[in-house]
Amino acid sequence: MNLEMLKTGTVEIIPQEEFSQTISSGKKLKIKWGADPSAPDLHLGHTVVLRKLKQFQDLGHEIIFLIGDFTAMIGDPTGKSETRPALSREQVLKNAETYQHQVFKVLDRTRTKVVFNSEWLNKLSPKEIIEIASRHTVARMLERDDFAKRYASQQAISIHEFLYPLFQGYDSVALRSDLEVGGTDQKFNLLVGRQLQEAYGQKPQLILTMPILEGLDGVQKMSKSLGNHVGITEAPEQIYGKIMSIADLLMPRYYKLLTDLVFDAQAHPMAEKKRLAFELVKTYHDEASAQKAAEHFSTMFSKKEVPEDIETHNIGQRTAPILHLLTSTGMVESKNEARRLILQGAVTIDGEKITDEQKIVDLTTPVILKAGKRRIARIQE
Amino acid sequence: MNLEMLKTGTVEIIPQEEFSQTISSGKKLKIKWGADPSAPDLHLGHTVVLRKLKQFQDLGHEIIFLIGDFTAMIGDPTGKSETRPALSREQVLKNAETYQHQVFKVLDRTRTKVVFNSEWLNKLSPKEIIEIASRHTVARMLERDDFAKRYASQQAISIHEFLYPLFQGYDSVALRSDLEVGGTDQKFNLLVGRQLQEAYGQKPQLILTMPILEGLDGVQKMSKSLGNHVGITEAPEQIYGKIMSIADLLMPRYYKLLTDLVFDAQAHPMAEKKRLAFELVKTYHDEASAQKAAEHFSTMFSKKEVPEDIETHNIGQRTAPILHLLTSTGMVESKNEARRLILQGAVTIDGEKITDEQKIVDLTTPVILKAGKRRIARIQE
Repeated sequence: MNLEMLKTGTVEIIPQEEFSQTISSGKKLKIKWGADPSAPDLHLGHTVVLRKLKQFQDLGHEIIFLIGDFTAMIGDPTGKSETRPALSREQVLKNAETYQHQVFKVLDRTRTKVVFNSEWLNKLSPKEIIEIASRHTVARMLERDDFAKRYASQQAISIHEFLYPLFQGYDSVALRSDLEVGGTDQKFNLLVGRQLQEAYGQKPQLILTMPILEGLDGVQKMSKSLGNHVGITEAPEQIYGKIMSIADLLMPRYYKLLTDLVFDAQAHPMAEKKRLAFELVKTYHDEASAQKAAEHFSTMFSKKEVPEDIETHNIGQRTAPILHLLTSTGMVESKNEARRLILQGAVTIDGEKITDEQKIVDLTTPVILKAGKRRIARIQE
Repeated sequence: MNLEMLKTGTVEIIPQEEFSQTISSGKKLKIKWGADPSAPDLHLGHTVVLRKLKQFQDLGHEIIFLIGDFTAMIGDPTGKSETRPALSREQVLKNAETYQHQVFKVLDRTRTKVVFNSEWLNKLSPKEIIEIASRHTVARMLERDDFAKRYASQQAISIHEFLYPLFQGYDSVALRSDLEVGGTDQKFNLLVGRQLQEAYGQKPQLILTMPILEGLDGVQKMSKSLGNHVGITEAPEQIYGKIMSIADLLMPRYYKLLTDLVFDAQAHPMAEKKRLAFELVKTYHDEASAQKAAEHFSTMFSKKEVPEDIETHNIGQRTAPILHLLTSTGMVESKNEARRLILQGAVTIDGEKITDEQKIVDLTTPVILKAGKRRIARIQE
C-alpha cells in the first residue's frame, strides 16, 4: 500500500495522523526539497532523501527542487561546529548546475520543478526581513543542537546564521509547500517552515525526516570532508570497490536505505556485498558497467593472488606519497620503519617493488599494497 | 578650556586619550546623535545629552541629528524588559516632527543637520543586511544588560531585536561619524557603531556617554511612563511647580546636568530650588514666563495660607477622582476613610469643601488638598 511505502525508512512524520489522512485522501501535494549547492558532489548519503522523493513522484506528487542559491551565500550552519564561509554568486551557480545533473540520476527530470530561492529572497525589503526575523525568538534558535553546543562552548555564532533557518523557513511560505522532506539534521529548520507558514496565515507543511547515512567507516555520517563517502558520479570500479570495503554489519542498513532490494541474512556476506555493490553501480551507471566492475574486482584479486576479503583503506585523495600510505593505514609504526622496509625492497604496489621513498602512488584505480610478508591491504581513493 | 568643558559631566569617553588629542587638534568633527521618534515628548532627561551636544556645536563641530525613522519601526529594545511594538510609518513621521520642534529649544537649528536613517537603511539589499549581521556574534549581543536579563529570566527576545543595534551601528558607517554621544544605556549600541565602522574600513567613532537623569522621585530614571518627568513643553507653572517638589538632595545633580549655574551649598535650599526652577522655565520658555511662574507659586501658597514647603505629589495625569487622590497620596488609609471624611465635610481643594465623593479634580494647575486639620499636600499633574 502506498501509505506504508511512504512511511518506510522515515524517522519522523509530523504530524503523523494528518500525513496519513492527506495521503489517503489522494490529494496531490507540493513537496519541497531544499538543496544547498555549496557541496555539489552528491554521494549515497544524499540519495536516502532523494529516493524517498522519487516514491512520492511516482505517485504523482509534485517535487519542487529548491536550490538555495541565496541561502548558500550565507552558508548553512546546521550541524557545523563553526561559522561557514559564504560562497560567491559564481561558485553557487556553477555548483547548482552540477547538482541538478546529479539529482536527475534519481529523480525524473520531466516531473520535477526546479526553483532558486534568490527569486524571492533577493526581492525582500529590509522591512520584510525584519518582519520575518520578528517571528522567531533567540531562545528557540539557541535550542537547536548545533547552536546550543557552540554557544555553550563559547564558539562564535554570527547573527546572520540565525537568519539562515528563517530564510529557509520563509521558502516554504513563498512556495506554499504542503510537505517538506529532509534529513533528521534538518528537523529544526523544517519546523521553522511550519511555524512561519502559520504566522503568514498558511496551512503548515507536513514534515518527513529521513535518517542520516553512515559512511564507509560505519561510524560517522557519510561526508565528503570525512573521506568516507561514495560519490554517485564516481567511476564504476570505485563505487564497487568502496562498497566491498564496508563492514558486514553495515550491509542491512545500506540495503534498506539505498536500494529496493531485501538483504538476505542467510546468504554469504561476501555474496550479499557483491550484490549490493552491483546494484549501486547499476543504479548510478548501468548494468553493463556493474558487470565490468564486478569482473574487474574479482580479476584484480585473483591476478594479484590475494584473498578478496583483505582490509581496504579509503584514502580520500587521488594520489598519495608512499610513506603517507604506509603510515596512515597503520601498516608501519613510523616513517623510519617505512623507509627501512623500502630500502630492504620489502614494499610492493600491485606486486612491483618500490625503490623510491618519494614515490607518489596513483589511486584512481585501487591498488594492493604490501609491506613485508604479512602486511597487506587494498588501497583506494 | 574647551577640552575640560566637554569632559564635564560625562560618564565615559572612549578612547579617552584619542578624544583629548582630537579635540586639541582643532579638527571639526561630525557628531552623530541618534533619536528614536517613538517617544516624541522630550523631558529634562533628554536634555542632558542635548546640552552636551550644544557645547560641541558652539565650538563649531557639526551635529547630525539622526532620526531613527527606520529603526523605530523595529522598536529599540534597549533597557526594555519586553519586546516593544513597532510603530507605523505615519506615527513615526508625526513623532519625528514633534521631536525636531523640541530639540531646537536646545540645539541651534541653523547649525544642525537633520537626517532620517530610512534614507540608507531602506535601500539595503538582503545580501547587505546579511553582511551586516555577519559582523556581530550572538554571544556578544547577549552580553548586553537588558538582553542578558531577559534571556536569563526566559522572557522572549525576538531575533529582529538583535538587528536593532546592528542597524543603529550601521548608521555610523553610513554617516562616517567621528563621534557619537548618548546616555550610558546606549553604550553597547555606540560600541557596535565603532565595531562596524572598523569592519567597513573606517576610523571608529569616538564615544561619549552621559549620565541618566533621575526623575522627580530621585530614585528611578526620568521617564514619561513612570510619571516622574518634567516635559520641556509643559506650561511654565507646571515646570516650576514640579521642580519645587524635588528633594533637596537631588538639587546639586539637577544643577550640574541641566543648567550652567553652580549650586550653592551655603544658600537656603528653598532659595536654591526657586533659582533652579526659574532657570529651567527661562530656558524652555523665557524670562518673563519664569517670573510669572515664580509669582504664581508664591501667591498660591500665601493666598491659601499654607507653608511653601509642604509635600508635593505628582499624579501624572491631568484629572483624577478625589478618592484616588486621597488614597494614592497616602493621606488616608482607605477609600472608606476618604468617604467618611468627605461626608464630615473635612476634605477641601484650594479651601473649597468637597461634598461629592465622585468629584473629578482638575490638575492642570496645582491644587492644595486638605483632609482633616493636619493632612495637607500640594497636588499636581
